[in-house]
Amino acid sequence: MHRSLVSISDLTDEEVTELIDLSKVFREVNSREIPKVPALRGKTVATLFFENSTRTRLSFELAATRLSADVLTFTLGSSSVSKGESLRDTAETIESLGADLIIMRHSSSGAVGLVGSWLDIPLVNAGDGAHEHPTQALLDAFTLMDQFETGPRLDGINVAIVGDVLHSRVARSNVQLMSRLGAKITLVGPPVLLPLDLSLWPVKVSHSLDEVLAGSDVLYLLRIQSERFSESLVPSLSEFAKSFSLNMERLAKAKKETVVMHPGPMIRGVEITGEVADSPQSLVRKQVENGVSVRMAVLYWLLGAGQERLEPIW
Amino acid sequence: MHRSLVSISDLTDEEVTELIDLSKVFREVNSREIPKVPALRGKTVATLFFENSTRTRLSFELAATRLSADVLTFTLGSSSVSKGESLRDTAETIESLGADLIIMRHSSSGAVGLVGSWLDIPLVNAGDGAHEHPTQALLDAFTLMDQFETGPRLDGINVAIVGDVLHSRVARSNVQLMSRLGAKITLVGPPVLLPLDLSLWPVKVSHSLDEVLAGSDVLYLLRIQSERFSESLVPSLSEFAKSFSLNMERLAKAKKETVVMHPGPMIRGVEITGEVADSPQSLVRKQVENGVSVRMAVLYWLLGAGQERLEPIW
Amino acid sequence: MHRSLVSISDLTDEEVTELIDLSKVFREVNSREIPKVPALRGKTVATLFFENSTRTRLSFELAATRLSADVLTFTLGSSSVSKGESLRDTAETIESLGADLIIMRHSSSGAVGLVGSWLDIPLVNAGDGAHEHPTQALLDAFTLMDQFETGPRLDGINVAIVGDVLHSRVARSNVQLMSRLGAKITLVGPPVLLPLDLSLWPVKVSHSLDEVLAGSDVLYLLRIQSERFSESLVPSLSEFAKSFSLNMERLAKAKKETVVMHPGPMIRGVEITGEVADSPQSLVRKQVENGVSVRMAVLYWLLGAGQERLEPIW
Repeated sequence: MHRSLVSISDLTDEEVTELIDLSKVFREVNSREIPKVPALRGKTVATLFFENSTRTRLSFELAATRLSADVLTFTLGSSSVSKGESLRDTAETIESLGADLIIMRHSSSGAVGLVGSWLDIPLVNAGDGAHEHPTQALLDAFTLMDQFETGPRLDGINVAIVGDVLHSRVARSNVQLMSRLGAKITLVGPPVLLPLDLSLWPVKVSHSLDEVLAGSDVLYLLRIQSERFSESLVPSLSEFAKSFSLNMERLAKAKKETVVMHPGPMIRGVEITGEVADSPQSLVRKQVENGVSVRMAVLYWLLGAGQERLEPIW
Repeated sequence: MHRSLVSISDLTDEEVTELIDLSKVFREVNSREIPKVPALRGKTVATLFFENSTRTRLSFELAATRLSADVLTFTLGSSSVSKGESLRDTAETIESLGADLIIMRHSSSGAVGLVGSWLDIPLVNAGDGAHEHPTQALLDAFTLMDQFETGPRLDGINVAIVGDVLHSRVARSNVQLMSRLGAKITLVGPPVLLPLDLSLWPVKVSHSLDEVLAGSDVLYLLRIQSERFSESLVPSLSEFAKSFSLNMERLAKAKKETVVMHPGPMIRGVEITGEVADSPQSLVRKQVENGVSVRMAVLYWLLGAGQERLEPIW
Repeated sequence: MHRSLVSISDLTDEEVTELIDLSKVFREVNSREIPKVPALRGKTVATLFFENSTRTRLSFELAATRLSADVLTFTLGSSSVSKGESLRDTAETIESLGADLIIMRHSSSGAVGLVGSWLDIPLVNAGDGAHEHPTQALLDAFTLMDQFETGPRLDGINVAIVGDVLHSRVARSNVQLMSRLGAKITLVGPPVLLPLDLSLWPVKVSHSLDEVLAGSDVLYLLRIQSERFSESLVPSLSEFAKSFSLNMERLAKAKKETVVMHPGPMIRGVEITGEVADSPQSLVRKQVENGVSVRMAVLYWLLGAGQERLEPIW
C-alpha cells in the first residue's frame, strides 16, 4: 500500500513528528560541503504543475536532486493537455514512463486527491485550488518550532493569519497543522475575505489587524490575490492595505519577539511593506530555506528509503 | 560515418532485430532497484522540439538519464528562433555546444532529415510533420512481439490502423515496420482521412471499422487531430465518432485476444471511449512503459557505447 | 567576500589572464572521452533568465553540468513574477533555496548589478539590456588568441565591430576587453546605430563597411535587432543590408586571413549572408564551442573550487 501526502489530515501526530525529525536530519545534510545523499538514487520524481509556480517547483526539484533522484519536469505550456488529453491520461502516462512519485499542483480544489485515487505511486500535493498545501504547513511549523524552541509542538504560540483566508490553501493547511500542534490561531481579515462558515474551524476571528498585534507571537500574512479584486470582493487594494497591510508602524505595536511570516510570493506595498519584509523579525527567507529540508523529508518518507543511505556523497 | 534514425527505412532487418534485442536488455535494466547504467556517461543528448509534446520528450529524456547521459532541453518558446534564427543555425549551435546526439521534432515533413544532412552527429526523428515517427513504430512492434510471443517477427498478426491516417506520421512508420516484420495491415477510415494513392502501400483498405473488428488481432487507433476538422475534411467530430470510435459495443465484436493500441495523446470520447482505454485489452500504458526501454536502445545503439558499460550503477 | 562577474571592468588584467588559462584547462577537459570533472559537485547553480535565450542559457547549464554542479532553471514564463513579485524577492528566494551562484539575464541595463548588490552569492551577468555581456567578450578574446596565436594578448589585431552598436551589450563588453588586451577597434555602422558620444570609447569610427574591409583582421558582426526598425532609426532592413551586410563580394576585399565573428543568433540575409556564415573564414561555430569552456572557467573561478578536483570523472 503506497502513501501519499494530499492533506494534512493524511498524517497522524506521530507521522508529523517523524517528518519534523527527518527535516532536521536533512537540514544537517544541507549544511554539508556537499549537501547530497544517495538516498533516492535510481528513483524518478516527476513534477506535474498545471499552475505556474517557481519557488515551489524549484524547491521540490532541488530536494529531489539532493536525494540523488532523477527529475522529470512536466510543464503545462508544452503539453498534450492542449490537444485535449485528460488529466487522468496525463498522470497515468507519467506513471507509465516510470515515475516513482508525482508532485502535483492544480488550480482545482480536490484535483490532486482525485489523481491520487487513480495512481499506484505516491503523490504529493503542491497546492490544489483553495484546498491544501501540506508541505507549506510542515515547513512553517518546522520554522516556528525552531524559532520558539518549543520542541515538536507549538503549544502556547499565538498565530494571527492575516488577509485573504477565503482563497488560501496555505491558510487551510496551516490552521489544521498548527492547531493540532497546540498553537492558538486567529484569522484576521475583512469579512468578505474570510470563509462564511467558520464554526468547525479551530480558530478565533478578528476583523482588525490592529487589535491582534499585541497578542500575537506570529503574524502570518497571506498574498492578496489581486485577481480577486476584479470580483469586487473588496473595494480596492489601497483600502485593503490601509487596514490590513503590515507596516513598520503596526509591527512596532507587536512584541519584540513577534515574527512575521509569508508563504510567498509577497506583493510588497500591499499585504506587507518592503521594510517589514526585510526586517530582522521576518522569517520569510528562513521559510524558503527550510522548505528544501522539509521537502527532502517528505520525498524520503514517501519513497521509504532505508536510513542507511544517508551517508555523505562524493 | 555516423548513423541517424530518421525513417524506418534507415534500418536493415538485422538492425531492427538488434534494436529489439537491446530493448529487452534495457527493459531488464528498468526493472532493477536502480534502473540506470553508466553506458553514456559524459555524453550530452539534446532534445530539440519545435512542436509541443510531453510524453515523447520526457520519454527520451528519461531514457537518456537512465543511460547516465546529460540532457540539454531546447524548447521553442524560449528560443532564438523568435528572433529570426534559421533552423540550420539553431541545430548547428546545439552541435557546437557539444551535443553528441540530437532528438528532434518538427511540424514539417522532412525537416529532421534535412537537419541530419547538415550535422556530423546522430539525429533521432521524434516526429516530423506527417512523415515519420520511427521510435513509436519500434516500441509498438516491441509491445506486440511481447504480447503475441511471436519472437522477433509479427508474422500472421492482423493489424487494423484506424482513423486519421492521412495526417499520421505514426501510421507511416508503423505500416513500414509492421509489414516488414510480417504483419498484415488494414487501414480503416473515411476516404477523406486516408491518403489518396495507396497503390504502393503494403496494406488493405476498409472504410468500415465494424467490418474489420472480427478479423483483427490489433486495433490501432490514431488521434483525431481536431484542428483538421476546420478544414472540412469530415462533417463533424460526432459523425466521425459514430462510425469510427472504438467503444465497448464494438470491442465486444472482436476476439477476446484482440488488443487495443493508441500512440497517445488519446481524446477520450472521440476515437476511443474511456471504457475501452481502461479495459484489460488496452495496451496503451504498456506502450508508454516500453517506450523508455526502446528509446534507451536507440540512444545506446546510435552512440555506439561498448556493451561492457551496462553493469549496475550505484 | 564573494566575487561576481557583472562587467568586464570587474576583472583585473591578471584575472583576465587567469580566466583565459582556466579556459584552456577546460577545453582540454571538453576534449576528453568523458568531458566532466567533479569540481563543483554538490554546488547548485541557478539560471535566472528574464529575457529569452537558448544558446547562452544552454551554454551555461552545460558548463555547470560538466563541472558536476546541479542546475536550477528559472524561466520567466512559469514564474511568480507574473503575480507581482519583485525582482529582489525572486532573486533572494533563489538564494534562500540554496543556490551557490546565479547566472542572470535581464532586459534592463544595470539590473544584474543591482541584484548583485542584494545577494551574498556570486552572480554572473549573462546579458543586461544594452549594458554588458562579459562572458561573450571573454569567449571572443579566447577564440581570437587561439586563431592568431597572440598568446594572452590581442596586440596589433584590428577589429571592426559592425552594425547596431547602439543597442549592443556584446559591443560594450568586447570594446572594453579587446582594447585592454591591445586590439585596435573600429566601430562601423550608420550614425543612428552608433552611440551619440563616443569620446570616451577607445575606438575609431567609420560609417562605411567597404572602407574598413582591407585593414581588418576581424569583422565582428552584430545582430540587427529588427524590433529597432519600428522606431524608424534606419529607413529599412534592405537599405541597411545594402551598405552593411557582409556578403562574399565584400569578404573578398578583405585579407585571406581575416576572420568573421558573430555572437549569434545570426539573421542570415540581413547583417550576414549564408555563404559568409558558412565560409571557412567564419569563426561562429568556434565561438559557440569555446563558450562552454570559458563559462566553465568563470563558474569554477567564482566558486573558488580547489584545483585538485579536476581529475577525470567516471
